[in-house]
Amino acid sequence: MKLIRLMAITLLVLLVPAMSTQAADLLPSWNDGPSKQAIIEFVNATTDKTSPKFVPPEERIATFDNDGTLWAEQPMYFQLLFALDRVKALAPQHPEWKDQEPFASLLKGDVKGALAGGEHALLEIVMATHAGMTTEEFTQTVKDWIATAKHPKTGRLYTEMVYQPMLELLATLRANGFKTFIVSGGGIEFMRPWTEKVYGIPPEQVVGSSIKTKFEMRDGKPVLTRLAEVDFVDDGPGKPVGINSHIGRRPIAAFGNSDGDLEMLQWTAAGGGKRFCLYVHHTDAEREWAYDRQSHIGKLDKGLDEAKAKGWTVVDMKNDWKRIFAWEK
Amino acid sequence: MKLIRLMAITLLVLLVPAMSTQAADLLPSWNDGPSKQAIIEFVNATTDKTSPKFVPPEERIATFDNDGTLWAEQPMYFQLLFALDRVKALAPQHPEWKDQEPFASLLKGDVKGALAGGEHALLEIVMATHAGMTTEEFTQTVKDWIATAKHPKTGRLYTEMVYQPMLELLATLRANGFKTFIVSGGGIEFMRPWTEKVYGIPPEQVVGSSIKTKFEMRDGKPVLTRLAEVDFVDDGPGKPVGINSHIGRRPIAAFGNSDGDLEMLQWTAAGGGKRFCLYVHHTDAEREWAYDRQSHIGKLDKGLDEAKAKGWTVVDMKNDWKRIFAWEK
Repeated sequence: MKLIRLMAITLLVLLVPAMSTQAADLLPSWNDGPSKQAIIEFVNATTDKTSPKFVPPEERIATFDNDGTLWAEQPMYFQLLFALDRVKALAPQHPEWKDQEPFASLLKGDVKGALAGGEHALLEIVMATHAGMTTEEFTQTVKDWIATAKHPKTGRLYTEMVYQPMLELLATLRANGFKTFIVSGGGIEFMRPWTEKVYGIPPEQVVGSSIKTKFEMRDGKPVLTRLAEVDFVDDGPGKPVGINSHIGRRPIAAFGNSDGDLEMLQWTAAGGGKRFCLYVHHTDAEREWAYDRQSHIGKLDKGLDEAKAKGWTVVDMKNDWKRIFAWEK
Repeated sequence: MKLIRLMAITLLVLLVPAMSTQAADLLPSWNDGPSKQAIIEFVNATTDKTSPKFVPPEERIATFDNDGTLWAEQPMYFQLLFALDRVKALAPQHPEWKDQEPFASLLKGDVKGALAGGEHALLEIVMATHAGMTTEEFTQTVKDWIATAKHPKTGRLYTEMVYQPMLELLATLRANGFKTFIVSGGGIEFMRPWTEKVYGIPPEQVVGSSIKTKFEMRDGKPVLTRLAEVDFVDDGPGKPVGINSHIGRRPIAAFGNSDGDLEMLQWTAAGGGKRFCLYVHHTDAEREWAYDRQSHIGKLDKGLDEAKAKGWTVVDMKNDWKRIFAWEK
């Protein structure tokens, strides 16, 4: 037992100095090409102490969007699918929903009809399913759902709908001293219960949209109650605001897939020294989905133009990724 | 050569498990007594793998109030002294302040008169000195001030007004796998520019009160502008809310000095497993200041009663600390 430990530590001692040059080997699901090369070149330039672009470890902050960047977002945001499942689960306690939109349509299975009410309808669904309980109760509900609910098209757990190449990228960055954060338009408390297990990103490194919470005593026990009031929308221009509020440093690398990530990438790119901005472009209709400028989910239009103009890395999912999901044949 | 390396590594292997039992040696400014013993006992119980109270490293979250817990807060909060200095520095650009309260009194040196306007006056001073610039400009102003401004009584830099025993405690916890956070009523962007250097706590582990910021393009360059609008007050019942928002886990140890920290300690104590709550009690009128139940700064009244009732650790600064400041003789 001790010998194995000794050998492991010896190995570690021998391997550490060479780690950054091995970034290539840590990205087996990436095809050789300009995207993979750009990642390796960035990691080497910022972590090699002799490089003029060297960045000290504490400043190696990398931020990742979640929906469409780390996991899929079709046929609709997974958190919305969670909310719809919750409406069904909670319906017996809400007989009034049978005659009340957007719930009435939802309960008849007419999602499109329910969402025809636009942002107001969406907010009603979110608040009915995300507010009114304690933070601990909500966390447990998310844990139960994420452990069992299946994606409507693939039949896979949602945590299996994550992109294998992005998991390798997260691990590569961390192996090179980067601190990885999620900065998502999704709900912060919807993500935190599972991001550590799935992405290796702990709760304190998750930034997202939020509703307000209130501290109160319930039977002499302190609880945080989730209120039906929007606190912060972590999307578009909200992303640099959320980064500033939660991280307090400007990232040196940022990863997104939609126009909602553009301000985060602009904010990242505008700092001094070496910077890395990457867009995941959904180009694979067979293994995943293909969408960009016209999509109402994950629309990538302005961002695609700016990426080209500024020379940011644009991942072509179809050609850059050997496989998209870990379970692919 | 190889043998020496092997021996060094073996030594390391042998020493690591014993680290937590050496907590005592990492606290040289603490007198032997119940406070020091309670700290050591907590660290040992939560980090010894054979202990029934063992806590995995990722859950070892410790939160610290700042004013009066990590650094002094008399004769008034240091951030208020910063604001007063800023009013003086900005006065030439604001000729109207000569006839406008609370600025008129302040500029005449009458701080008490200026603050007679209560919360409204305070908010006016804060907004006039903390809003209207970009986040980068504000950070630079704080850096310049903290590097040069002197405490009115001791003539020391404010960063020298930190408590040496608490620095040792922070280091002890981190050496035992804890992640240390600041959770302060003070401004989050007032603390972040210097907490890493002074406390070893990076910006992303600082939680505090905040004003809103806005993302905008200025001459084609993205900036975050600080708005004259309160975003979040990280005090009292706000502390568990801030902890939940920024950290997303319940601390297993919390450290404060006033009633404004009580909810943070209650929230920490109410979790399962081993917990540690500590109040710093200002009992040393000679080396620091002595104040508690009647003080308008750092009032400790309800908290002191609850600490006694619940068996929390109460540090008696006069008797528990060998020295308070590093520069003491």
